[in-house]
Amino acid sequence: MEAVAKLYSRSIDCSIQVSRVMRPDDANIAGNVHGGTILKMIEEAGVIISTRHCNSRNEERCVAVLARVERTDFLSPMSIGEVAHVSAEITYTSKHSVEVQVNVMAENIIKGAKRLTNRATLWYVALSLENVDKVVDIPSIQYISPEQQEEGRKRYEAQKLDRIETKQRNEDNILPAINVDRQSKEPFTVGYSQSSLIHLVGPSDCALHKFVQGGVTMKLMDEVAGIVAARHCKTNIVTASVDAINFHQKIEKGSVITVSGRMTFTSNKSMEIEVFVDVDHVLESPKGKAHAVTAFFTYVSLDKDGKALPIPMLKIEMEDEKRRFDEGRNRYLHTKAKRMAQAQKCQ
Amino acid sequence: MEAVAKLYSRSIDCSIQVSRVMRPDDANIAGNVHGGTILKMIEEAGVIISTRHCNSRNEERCVAVLARVERTDFLSPMSIGEVAHVSAEITYTSKHSVEVQVNVMAENIIKGAKRLTNRATLWYVALSLENVDKVVDIPSIQYISPEQQEEGRKRYEAQKLDRIETKQRNEDNILPAINVDRQSKEPFTVGYSQSSLIHLVGPSDCALHKFVQGGVTMKLMDEVAGIVAARHCKTNIVTASVDAINFHQKIEKGSVITVSGRMTFTSNKSMEIEVFVDVDHVLESPKGKAHAVTAFFTYVSLDKDGKALPIPMLKIEMEDEKRRFDEGRNRYLHTKAKRMAQAQKCQ
Amino acid sequence: MEAVAKLYSRSIDCSIQVSRVMRPDDANIAGNVHGGTILKMIEEAGVIISTRHCNSRNEERCVAVLARVERTDFLSPMSIGEVAHVSAEITYTSKHSVEVQVNVMAENIIKGAKRLTNRATLWYVALSLENVDKVVDIPSIQYISPEQQEEGRKRYEAQKLDRIETKQRNEDNILPAINVDRQSKEPFTVGYSQSSLIHLVGPSDCALHKFVQGGVTMKLMDEVAGIVAARHCKTNIVTASVDAINFHQKIEKGSVITVSGRMTFTSNKSMEIEVFVDVDHVLESPKGKAHAVTAFFTYVSLDKDGKALPIPMLKIEMEDEKRRFDEGRNRYLHTKAKRMAQAQKCQ
Repeated sequence: MEAVAKLYSRSIDCSIQVSRVMRPDDANIAGNVHGGTILKMIEEAGVIISTRHCNSRNEERCVAVLARVERTDFLSPMSIGEVAHVSAEITYTSKHSVEVQVNVMAENIIKGAKRLTNRATLWYVALSLENVDKVVDIPSIQYISPEQQEEGRKRYEAQKLDRIETKQRNEDNILPAINVDRQSKEPFTVGYSQSSLIHLVGPSDCALHKFVQGGVTMKLMDEVAGIVAARHCKTNIVTASVDAINFHQKIEKGSVITVSGRMTFTSNKSMEIEVFVDVDHVLESPKGKAHAVTAFFTYVSLDKDGKALPIPMLKIEMEDEKRRFDEGRNRYLHTKAKRMAQAQKCQ
Repeated sequence: MEAVAKLYSRSIDCSIQVSRVMRPDDANIAGNVHGGTILKMIEEAGVIISTRHCNSRNEERCVAVLARVERTDFLSPMSIGEVAHVSAEITYTSKHSVEVQVNVMAENIIKGAKRLTNRATLWYVALSLENVDKVVDIPSIQYISPEQQEEGRKRYEAQKLDRIETKQRNEDNILPAINVDRQSKEPFTVGYSQSSLIHLVGPSDCALHKFVQGGVTMKLMDEVAGIVAARHCKTNIVTASVDAINFHQKIEKGSVITVSGRMTFTSNKSMEIEVFVDVDHVLESPKGKAHAVTAFFTYVSLDKDGKALPIPMLKIEMEDEKRRFDEGRNRYLHTKAKRMAQAQKCQ
Repeated sequence: MEAVAKLYSRSIDCSIQVSRVMRPDDANIAGNVHGGTILKMIEEAGVIISTRHCNSRNEERCVAVLARVERTDFLSPMSIGEVAHVSAEITYTSKHSVEVQVNVMAENIIKGAKRLTNRATLWYVALSLENVDKVVDIPSIQYISPEQQEEGRKRYEAQKLDRIETKQRNEDNILPAINVDRQSKEPFTVGYSQSSLIHLVGPSDCALHKFVQGGVTMKLMDEVAGIVAARHCKTNIVTASVDAINFHQKIEKGSVITVSGRMTFTSNKSMEIEVFVDVDHVLESPKGKAHAVTAFFTYVSLDKDGKALPIPMLKIEMEDEKRRFDEGRNRYLHTKAKRMAQAQKCQ
């Protein structure tokens, strides 16, 4: 009986559902909802549930800040007028991080059909409201079994390793994201489709604290990646997946963010775009030199019936473009192999 | 066992929860979330659940359109950074209407406190997607008891009567909402605080069909009422309640809406503002002469600690202003008496 | 008697007022509303009134599209929580253009004070809804006196001349707006503050037709100009004025706009920023080579009390920067002389 009560209270405190109708402004002109809109909703659910949890047994008031999103696949595009249901649950806690798992369902309320469109895993840390440079201890959740806790711990260790690695890689690679000399008029080259936008961080980007919410940044990253993809293949393009993203810097209200994207790799049916976020603390001098965020987005191109179209091959002109293309191919083959292994396991 | 299964399926199909963090743009400069933001979220939950229901057993594809909102009280103001949880449930169906009851909770995820802020009842009709002038039959819901159904039927009859009455009243009263000759420089007069705004109906105001969603209209109405109230008493004002609102006209994408408000009555601690919505089909000549929507909003004025301040008395200059003031007082006394009767019943 | 009736009907058909409360997202972190927010509201009033007028006696359904905005001064910055009242009136019609004059008032509804913040003049043409390449004839308005009409005709001829001139100048000047080689790390140079953003044109940018509304474009231009100004002087900056802007190309929904800005001139207390809009019709190959829109924005820098601060002088490194600086100084001196002449006339 007590166990049931615990489970019940857990489902109240440790889960949340965020839903809303998809509007024209959430979608491209073909009516497909931008991946960035979904990523922003996912992160909103994540920040709510983890801020709530971190304050549940703490005396020190704190807010959750996104540290990492695991690789996310977009299983099927959503359309205008459909309802997105984002449900989030806390699945693991370490001393200083919270793991949140999120499911996104698309519901066509006219036809009555529901389908899974995304699964995502997010990691948050909690910062003290009095001193935003202080990381606060996280209350532990109740696990259903020791195995469940042990699996969580493994996921925690794996992401920690990856975070450290990318941080070092970013610090070694302080060059500007976009090689401005290489703006090119020749179609299908890297220079032809590379794009960059600036965004002034406003109050609504920072509703819970004075820093940009991770979801806002991811939405801008997807926007740039989508423009790079559209410039390359001039068709209806949609987000297929996003590789793991690590957030290494807090970005304050009033900053100017520069988000840049360049194509790194094309396969027969997909394109990989690398996206960089750089922060310009307009009113102060810049502190560090590393990119605040980097990520790889994969896009596909769809015909009128939603079938994948072939992608024009990326024209490589320079040594470093060649290197990045090869690295992109490795990531592509690695993911493909992993997916086949999983499919076999399920048979 | 079957009963449980039914209840379970009912909770899936007939209920929904819409949640999100309140942002700076949702609130006034004192940080109190606008009543209009809440009304818009309430209506979004209502339109999702009723459109879903109307398509559940129908072969004819249809969308729900808001016909009426019952009187709604704002029990406590929400703040930026709090999470609004709007949960809606279908509680009655007639041949052509759906009743949706909605609860709004405010959650302070930092302090961990939750409180009820609103309860609302909405009525929808369903229009065919092929022919938007055709009203579609509504599938019946399952009632837990005959009493529950009978009580719903009474609510249905009562609102139907009120809808017919206000429709006639509106058609008799085709004068412009705001008497522009009476724009006055003298504080506390009707002419001093009367206000009007126009809004060009864009695509995102009409996500589910080609008509403005009722919630969008209510948000604009609350915005005008708030400006009238602030002009009158020059303090931090918040929505206390909205009288029943009937929607008599569909408003199409691309129309220009004029929303006008004037103060009708002041008590010691509250102000009543009448709001009119008129439609200008920019690209065509106007069709009817009746206002598309009218409603009475009640506002209170708060000091820094959230305590109600006295309201400067409305200065009456004209015969019709006097008549409206008396009608406003009647509504005020009627509501007060009703509330006291309810309070006594609960003792 | 007839004259009165005409004037009355004119004030109903030919004028409009758009009002709304300024929200946190409309302003910078110092709380000053962006000039672009005001420009967007001005254009929204203009497009409504001129579309309404063009359809009033026409059998052919049409929409108004912005062709030109005359030089606009920002007389005093607006703040969050104030109400912006934008009132627009049609003041001249030629065979194919409509002149709209707009006044913007800021009202502090708490203090009860109102002040004029902007005056603007806009020119629209009307395009057929069936065939957007067809310019539709404009119904003539009634003039109060022949003098009034004659003055309108002079304004019409003057703007026509300027439109033709800038079109030629733009076509001669097809180089990329931003010299990417010149991104510089040295403060106060042109390369240091130059900025550029991309924007994917969405449905809400095109509420009345399938082209971007002029106000949307102007808001983006002001956004880039503001970032250039903030990067240069790292203080609270506000828009002081915008030179005449001509719109030479329709920009369709789904296009990608690149908006670029570079500083051209600094005086003791002001900075001039040149802004370019280029269109990338993602799904088609580009047609022309001329910039879609260009404009000069003037910004000032304010201290905490709203007093103008000195501007760090622009460091000139290249021949063409020197030429642009001198042209900017000429514009600056010309405007200053004109303003002094006007001031003397008024004495």
